[in-house]
Amino acid sequence: LHQKPKDAYLLCVGMHGESGADAKCPPQNNTAINFFCNYEESRGNFLVDVDGNRMLDVYTQIASIPIGYNHPALLKVVSDPNNASAFVNRPALGILPPESFVDKLTEGLLTVAPKGLNRVQNMACGSCSNENAYKAMFIWYRNKERGTSIPSDADLNPGCPELSILSFSGAFHGRTMGCLATTHSKPIHKLDVPSFDWPIAPFPRLQYPLDEHVRENAQEEARCLEETEDLIVKWRHKGMPVAGVVIEPIQAEGGDNHASAAFFISLRKIASKHGCAFHVDEVQTGGGATGRFWAHEHWGAEDPADIVSFSKKLLTGGFFYRDEMETDKPYRIFNTWMGDPSKNLLLAEVLNVIRQENLLAEVTRTGKALLGGLYELQAKYPNLLSRARGQGTFCAIDVCKASVRDKLILQARDNGVILGGCGDLSIRFRPALIFKEHHVHMFLNVFSDLLAAH
Amino acid sequence: LHQKPKDAYLLCVGMHGESGADAKCPPQNNTAINFFCNYEESRGNFLVDVDGNRMLDVYTQIASIPIGYNHPALLKVVSDPNNASAFVNRPALGILPPESFVDKLTEGLLTVAPKGLNRVQNMACGSCSNENAYKAMFIWYRNKERGTSIPSDADLNPGCPELSILSFSGAFHGRTMGCLATTHSKPIHKLDVPSFDWPIAPFPRLQYPLDEHVRENAQEEARCLEETEDLIVKWRHKGMPVAGVVIEPIQAEGGDNHASAAFFISLRKIASKHGCAFHVDEVQTGGGATGRFWAHEHWGAEDPADIVSFSKKLLTGGFFYRDEMETDKPYRIFNTWMGDPSKNLLLAEVLNVIRQENLLAEVTRTGKALLGGLYELQAKYPNLLSRARGQGTFCAIDVCKASVRDKLILQARDNGVILGGCGDLSIRFRPALIFKEHHVHMFLNVFSDLLAAH
Ligand code: FES
Repeated sequence: LHQKPKDAYLLCVGMHGESGADAKCPPQNNTAINFFCNYEESRGNFLVDVDGNRMLDVYTQIASIPIGYNHPALLKVVSDPNNASAFVNRPALGILPPESFVDKLTEGLLTVAPKGLNRVQNMACGSCSNENAYKAMFIWYRNKERGTSIPSDADLNPGCPELSILSFSGAFHGRTMGCLATTHSKPIHKLDVPSFDWPIAPFPRLQYPLDEHVRENAQEEARCLEETEDLIVKWRHKGMPVAGVVIEPIQAEGGDNHASAAFFISLRKIASKHGCAFHVDEVQTGGGATGRFWAHEHWGAEDPADIVSFSKKLLTGGFFYRDEMETDKPYRIFNTWMGDPSKNLLLAEVLNVIRQENLLAEVTRTGKALLGGLYELQAKYPNLLSRARGQGTFCAIDVCKASVRDKLILQARDNGVILGGCGDLSIRFRPALIFKEHHVHMFLNVFSDLLAAH
Repeated sequence: LHQKPKDAYLLCVGMHGESGADAKCPPQNNTAINFFCNYEESRGNFLVDVDGNRMLDVYTQIASIPIGYNHPALLKVVSDPNNASAFVNRPALGILPPESFVDKLTEGLLTVAPKGLNRVQNMACGSCSNENAYKAMFIWYRNKERGTSIPSDADLNPGCPELSILSFSGAFHGRTMGCLATTHSKPIHKLDVPSFDWPIAPFPRLQYPLDEHVRENAQEEARCLEETEDLIVKWRHKGMPVAGVVIEPIQAEGGDNHASAAFFISLRKIASKHGCAFHVDEVQTGGGATGRFWAHEHWGAEDPADIVSFSKKLLTGGFFYRDEMETDKPYRIFNTWMGDPSKNLLLAEVLNVIRQENLLAEVTRTGKALLGGLYELQAKYPNLLSRARGQGTFCAIDVCKASVRDKLILQARDNGVILGGCGDLSIRFRPALIFKEHHVHMFLNVFSDLLAAH
């Protein structure tokens, strides 16, 4: 189990930039490649590499594997001859949907529609989900301004108004150019790419555990809300009004930054007060890892959002939205494929498994064990670890230095546990929904050995 | 065969905006839905609708079905148990590729690498392919300016320079916000969405058939080249230099606008002269429909491009690029999935079929019959039809009025032939690569009956 996956690693990353012509490396930028995997042999929570090392996966392909590797229910979907057509005939869903499309939506995505959001637009990944959610907000905003959804000829030409999306420091919403304008997790992501002059509000920097710092955290959140409102006013005066506010319920890539339910509810109110749509980006948080299907459900809000985007654990992409955000005309929110029905087939099965195996309750239980274990470790190694935090199994902990963090992640891998970093100093935990308490203990054993040896 | 597909049509489009709560309609903007399909029963060149109408498909899901519906070779890929894992375990390709990934690339995409472009970046659709191709050009341009690929701290903050991509009037490169800034086919696509102040050069408006208007067309192309060069200079003086020039070898959505090989070769030279990368967008033209795998092969250029993007008929997305356009660091061209290996599996099989059945030669033969038929029809109905044009089966013809064009497309559908429009007045022909001469005659029979009855 604990054999070092060196061969696969060296195959590619180790040699990058030396020979420059390593036949085993894909002919593209390889510098992010960790190692090569044997997906056929991987099972459940365990990823197997090309050397046969079987590793506990607490990162799951950047939080995108919902119910583990090679789940029998999903294999059955693929081997069912009735489904073959969905895999080989990818339709242009926006113009020629399959007969069963509405039923599949009703049995699948619509069973997890967030409160108040009756409509759903299929997309194919997190980026097109957010890009098109932004477009929907721009269109909604301008229709509101016009007081009609029928644009005049003057509107059509030139037609590209000065509007903005307000996002938060540390946010990550994707890497295509609209999304990237709202992404601020790492400078290298934005370097050299032109962007929009859109407002960036401060995301609260809270102290953890949240319930031990209620007063200071509330002050910090109040400060951020005030600045946000100021920015909305300022950008309106600049002639580039904020059409929508976008936020993650937990900032993931940016370092697992949490905020209170009260913060999000107040923010939503501020957005509405100023006529801005409120977009909750659940691309990384959605799908059950927080113990609720959507992280925003933890807010207990009656009217949490105007738009909720998703992807990753939902295998496809898209966004839910309120009736009044429906576009007026065809081909405004549109592309060739508009998603992929074969992914919706698999997703429907994932949702069945979540319900049948009661996985949200399981995640809550497992998450308690994980966070409890992290609290214990940070109490034991206060110079190394701090700021343990989480909701369900969507947990993180900070390490004293980036270099130590990176080393721990590498050592964990060489000892059979795959972890991922986020932000400057954090390790993030993103197991599949089938991660159980005994997997938590397996991870904690390896991790505490590494800490003890440090 | 020629039964009107009214039921399915009425189910959705007909009722949109009336009841507003039609249970059979997807809960999203439905106004583009044409009818519902039975993909299980569809075969080869024939699409079957929910009412059992079997229609000759000359549009193929917006030019995205390469070898027809339910091709046995593709069904075999899906039913092969060895492939099941690829369909259920979607990896984060950029960090944890499957063992076979390099081999699959070598056997698949790399066998069709355009001249001089040794590297390929997987993406998932046409939009992310173009968005990331633009980013690659921006990064390449700035590295060139810096004279080093190692950005300083000052570069990193703020890091978003004033750079532009030059595109052409009538172009279509996608609908996410970076792509959309270079898309100019229809105002409604851009309406209400903020954009960049990037230069838009005139695309030549040629007269057809090309070989009968060589001199006028050459003049028009010279005018466009001159204006393009002026714009590149102008934008440099504005402080927003053109990092890349993007163009389709045949403008598809914009109305099937062709230009000569000489035009493209000169344009590429102008781009190089001014230090701009040259990006050929083959999302719609790539994959064989012009009789060559890439439309730009018709130019006969030694050094056709720096970047070639693709999607649609290639089932996945991505772009080929020159060695020197490689990014310097990880996570600059990156996202969670970076494509989808299950699509690469199907694509490898599509490429095998193209080779085994010699489909490029077939397309050339079929295309001759199609274009010949269109020439005959426009000679017979000069008041209705004009400007027949095409390469391979990638053909189009103009109709006197948009309303007549739209009516002909609807009537053709009701008579068992699916066509698509493009531009203001054009009908575009986008059959699969397995479209044969007898399918051409089937179409011509229906179409000439409609014209005769008009
Ligand atoms: S942008 Fe989402 S799949 Fe291409």
